[in-house]
Amino acid sequence: MRKHKIVINYFSSNFKLGVLGGGQLGKMLLTETQKFDIYTVILDSAADAPCSQICNEFHIGNLMDFDTVYNFGKKVDLLTIEIEHVNIDALFKLEEEGLEVYPQPSVLQTIQHKGRQKDFFVENNIPTSPHKRFTSKEELLKETFNYPFVWKSAQFGYDGTGVKIVKNENDLNSLNDTDCIIEDLIPFKNELAVIVARNKKGDIKTYPVVEMEFHPEANQVEYVICPARIEDSVAKKAREIALKVAESFEHIGLLAVEMFQTENDEIIINEVAPRTHNSGHYSIEASYTSQFEQHVRSILNLPLGATESKAAGIMVNLVGEEGFSGKVVYENMEEILSMDGVTPHIYGKKETRPFRKMGHVTIVNDNLDEARKIAQKVKNTIRVISNSKRN
Amino acid sequence: MRKHKIVINYFSSNFKLGVLGGGQLGKMLLTETQKFDIYTVILDSAADAPCSQICNEFHIGNLMDFDTVYNFGKKVDLLTIEIEHVNIDALFKLEEEGLEVYPQPSVLQTIQHKGRQKDFFVENNIPTSPHKRFTSKEELLKETFNYPFVWKSAQFGYDGTGVKIVKNENDLNSLNDTDCIIEDLIPFKNELAVIVARNKKGDIKTYPVVEMEFHPEANQVEYVICPARIEDSVAKKAREIALKVAESFEHIGLLAVEMFQTENDEIIINEVAPRTHNSGHYSIEASYTSQFEQHVRSILNLPLGATESKAAGIMVNLVGEEGFSGKVVYENMEEILSMDGVTPHIYGKKETRPFRKMGHVTIVNDNLDEARKIAQKVKNTIRVISNSKRN
Repeated sequence: MRKHKIVINYFSSNFKLGVLGGGQLGKMLLTETQKFDIYTVILDSAADAPCSQICNEFHIGNLMDFDTVYNFGKKVDLLTIEIEHVNIDALFKLEEEGLEVYPQPSVLQTIQHKGRQKDFFVENNIPTSPHKRFTSKEELLKETFNYPFVWKSAQFGYDGTGVKIVKNENDLNSLNDTDCIIEDLIPFKNELAVIVARNKKGDIKTYPVVEMEFHPEANQVEYVICPARIEDSVAKKAREIALKVAESFEHIGLLAVEMFQTENDEIIINEVAPRTHNSGHYSIEASYTSQFEQHVRSILNLPLGATESKAAGIMVNLVGEEGFSGKVVYENMEEILSMDGVTPHIYGKKETRPFRKMGHVTIVNDNLDEARKIAQKVKNTIRVISNSKRN
Repeated sequence: MRKHKIVINYFSSNFKLGVLGGGQLGKMLLTETQKFDIYTVILDSAADAPCSQICNEFHIGNLMDFDTVYNFGKKVDLLTIEIEHVNIDALFKLEEEGLEVYPQPSVLQTIQHKGRQKDFFVENNIPTSPHKRFTSKEELLKETFNYPFVWKSAQFGYDGTGVKIVKNENDLNSLNDTDCIIEDLIPFKNELAVIVARNKKGDIKTYPVVEMEFHPEANQVEYVICPARIEDSVAKKAREIALKVAESFEHIGLLAVEMFQTENDEIIINEVAPRTHNSGHYSIEASYTSQFEQHVRSILNLPLGATESKAAGIMVNLVGEEGFSGKVVYENMEEILSMDGVTPHIYGKKETRPFRKMGHVTIVNDNLDEARKIAQKVKNTIRVISNSKRN
């Protein structure tokens, strides 16, 4: 019976790790499975996904399709994800039939739906802003609102899509007719994140708190900074709450916990992602154990690695510049490579589009202020454009 | 004309980097070309070479065969090596026809042959132990010897094969009949190494000096330690001499310079390797720029990265244990993964043999003494064996 199979050797063995999704998170995971020589099989819908040429086996198929995910799962010894929008029913069936699936399908199911996710926080006494759930726009419009408030589509939001600040009655018109939640808009000092790793034995570790620094006018995250420039007592609280979230889920794998530091120095959870996360990319260069290696360790029930940093780390996303679409060109790469401690990661998407995530750059330095200065120079120097057309 | 082709964009572009050799050095190079999304094409004679499944294109062929190497070179935009035993005539022809080949064929030709390499040192006033060249055993035996001395096969030595300490007349019998050199045996305090990176613009950087720590009885390198536990003045001299060697060659790419610290604190060159090197593996975790990324930067004429360390690093080779051959098992991996700052690299060779290089483990720590203690625990814990047979 597969359920009782004990895999004792993952390294240069016949063990097959399956991954749903072959994007940049999968690609950075492959660096680690290659390092450990763990045979890795990937499913993605795009033939030219970043992982396609560098894994042991690459399968093309729709991650939301039951049969595709189920049949893929039958080919592997353990299944994980790099994106949470996958067919959960197939995962439940695979788990029932004895396959190890991490994060667990039940956790994915809760997290995939922002209403269920928020209810989970409330049930488990995890601080979060007050919310209400609605199944349609019609139902929503019966509500009496305190403006401004936050509206979120319950499902399939990604990188800020499906989230709106509703300031007045007029703004209501622009909302989609869909399963949704609304939340109080809580003023905050800082947006923070903590990555938690937990394995099947229950070993659990948090990474240091990172801080998102926003552009003062554009209100866009410009830098992810580790360690966050906050008081130790606040950092301690943030790590404790992140631990509590992962423990409450009995989560196996990596969990990225996004939170707000309120004006009263309270920590409230914004949302969680059950996987490696943009806010942990700095760890590849800055931490003793990168988040991607840690994810591998967690799901394979190996001892967790040290989460401390070797140096301060700052991450800048490389997104496609507005006004450019087509074959990507990274302008001024030489200039940023000439700055100390600067490492670009190019995800391998051949076409740029406005705001498309094309890569990221990590800046590491003994000194956080120095890293911050270099990060700004990086940000002002590199451009993700296209020579072929301007739109 | 190809010679004047200016490649302005290596990242997610049509540019093709060719690599001769697909072993572990190639595999660790691929981590970097994947990170930068540089299309990489590899040639190796073994279908199951460590690089075979994780590069953009993998070609099977004999690296010593003129046509194979020449035809491979015609498919790529720039050619490099991860092993120096390749067909040099093909490289010369490719270079003549305008292909950029780094390290340069002329440098490879000199280094490939230990007699020419030693002559080069002498001609360029680079300190090395006195030597003599012989084209055959017959010619060698006409010599009057001062025992003990060092005998080296002029070509194809690797990891100590082709090197012998000749203590007396009897030992002469065991020497092969081949092109060879003999050297004075110079007593030394320390065996050191320095990696130098140099690009086409002539930018040049050295990594810190590393030290090989030998087993007190077995006379085998047990640990590569960075930084070397030597006086600053000695380290400075070692880096200066390494710089001089790379400058003398006008080398492009990475050059690993192995040297001895004599009992009088002189530095003399032992030999050089025109590529990434075992003595630089610690840099993946410990340095701001890993030697593999630095090699990519050097050959593509990009700015060189910082060579400083984020933390102290120690490297332990994982070699097949005596008495075991067959399907490899890494015993006690969990135990070493539970030690802080420990990263195993598994090269992906499926079969172990006594003394075969199967991987390495890096230990990083803020404190070098602490790293050294953990390294010893690692060394005493992990075993590279086989369950299938004992020979």
